[in-house]
Amino acid sequence: MPLVDIVALLALLEFFVFAGLVGRARGKYGVNAPSVTGHEMFERAYRVQMNTLELLMLFLPSLYIAAGYWPAGYVAACGAVYVVGRIVYQQAYMSDPARRGPGFLLSIGPCLILLIAGLVGAALAVSRGTA
Amino acid sequence: MPLVDIVALLALLEFFVFAGLVGRARGKYGVNAPSVTGHEMFERAYRVQMNTLELLMLFLPSLYIAAGYWPAGYVAACGAVYVVGRIVYQQAYMSDPARRGPGFLLSIGPCLILLIAGLVGAALAVSRGTA
Amino acid sequence: MPLVDIVALLALLEFFVFAGLVGRARGKYGVNAPSVTGHEMFERAYRVQMNTLELLMLFLPSLYIAAGYWPAGYVAACGAVYVVGRIVYQQAYMSDPARRGPGFLLSIGPCLILLIAGLVGAALAVSRGTA
Repeated sequence: MPLVDIVALLALLEFFVFAGLVGRARGKYGVNAPSVTGHEMFERAYRVQMNTLELLMLFLPSLYIAAGYWPAGYVAACGAVYVVGRIVYQQAYMSDPARRGPGFLLSIGPCLILLIAGLVGAALAVSRGTA
Repeated sequence: MPLVDIVALLALLEFFVFAGLVGRARGKYGVNAPSVTGHEMFERAYRVQMNTLELLMLFLPSLYIAAGYWPAGYVAACGAVYVVGRIVYQQAYMSDPARRGPGFLLSIGPCLILLIAGLVGAALAVSRGTA
Repeated sequence: MPLVDIVALLALLEFFVFAGLVGRARGKYGVNAPSVTGHEMFERAYRVQMNTLELLMLFLPSLYIAAGYWPAGYVAACGAVYVVGRIVYQQAYMSDPARRGPGFLLSIGPCLILLIAGLVGAALAVSRGTA
């Protein structure tokens, strides 16, 4: 499933960039390791990274489980919405945390759709006796 | 392996609920993003979510690697103990963090069993020359 | 791919040890749950664990995706460098956070190589029309 793999790797690359922005914010705002507090802008970058880490834990397994039951094209398209939604989230969070809602929904939504698609697909497979 | 998939997705759904409880605690106890401190009950909900994130990182890969070497039914049953153990952990942590031990053991235990089962299975496969 | 599985499970075992060191530091330095601050040495152990959690999210999916396109031996060898790099990172961070650079590069490097190898492999597969 190379299309699904490409979407998964783009989501990881995006996470890597968010983590890099946290590293840069450490220097820029003088927040030395191991501290993760001390400047609002650093904390925003850090929360974007942590929230993306949390969502990736939902996203990646759900993506691959769903891809085991449904056409790869649809699953990859749903995953692509997640990748774009995270960019919207990151941009909004950095400018104003209170405006992070739409980007959050645009990235958590695909995670939930993939999770439920996986559950339905697996439940159908069990009920058909292919377990 | 639909049974293993269902257990994995239930573990993810559980994590999603724990994350939702953190969001609710933000509003209830007035802890505004990006802060993750400021009220004991918010911090408990947040620690439950973070600890579950840490365990999922052990649990999901170990579950699927073990399922590659051992019968899916046993692997799924072991995974189901993890899912229940996390509920016990969450309930105990929210009422009193000092009592989080049993639920923690009930969820880390299955992770370690799956991890070791995977290691033994893979080592046997290598030694049989099927690498 | 038992060799790749063994490397993945060793990376998880390593993460489990780092998490255990955080638990031990809680007791040793009197940092009670749910707090994750209060003593420099505890915070170092905690940051090692969190950073390893972040890297595992990049490492494990990239490892398995790359293994779908390239020989398992090379992929496992690249993964083994990550596992060793994390030990170097942990040792350096605990003695002096400012010296965490080399170990970090030695563990993030293999993640990026695997990620890019996966992207190239998947893109070649798509371009060959095997999508």
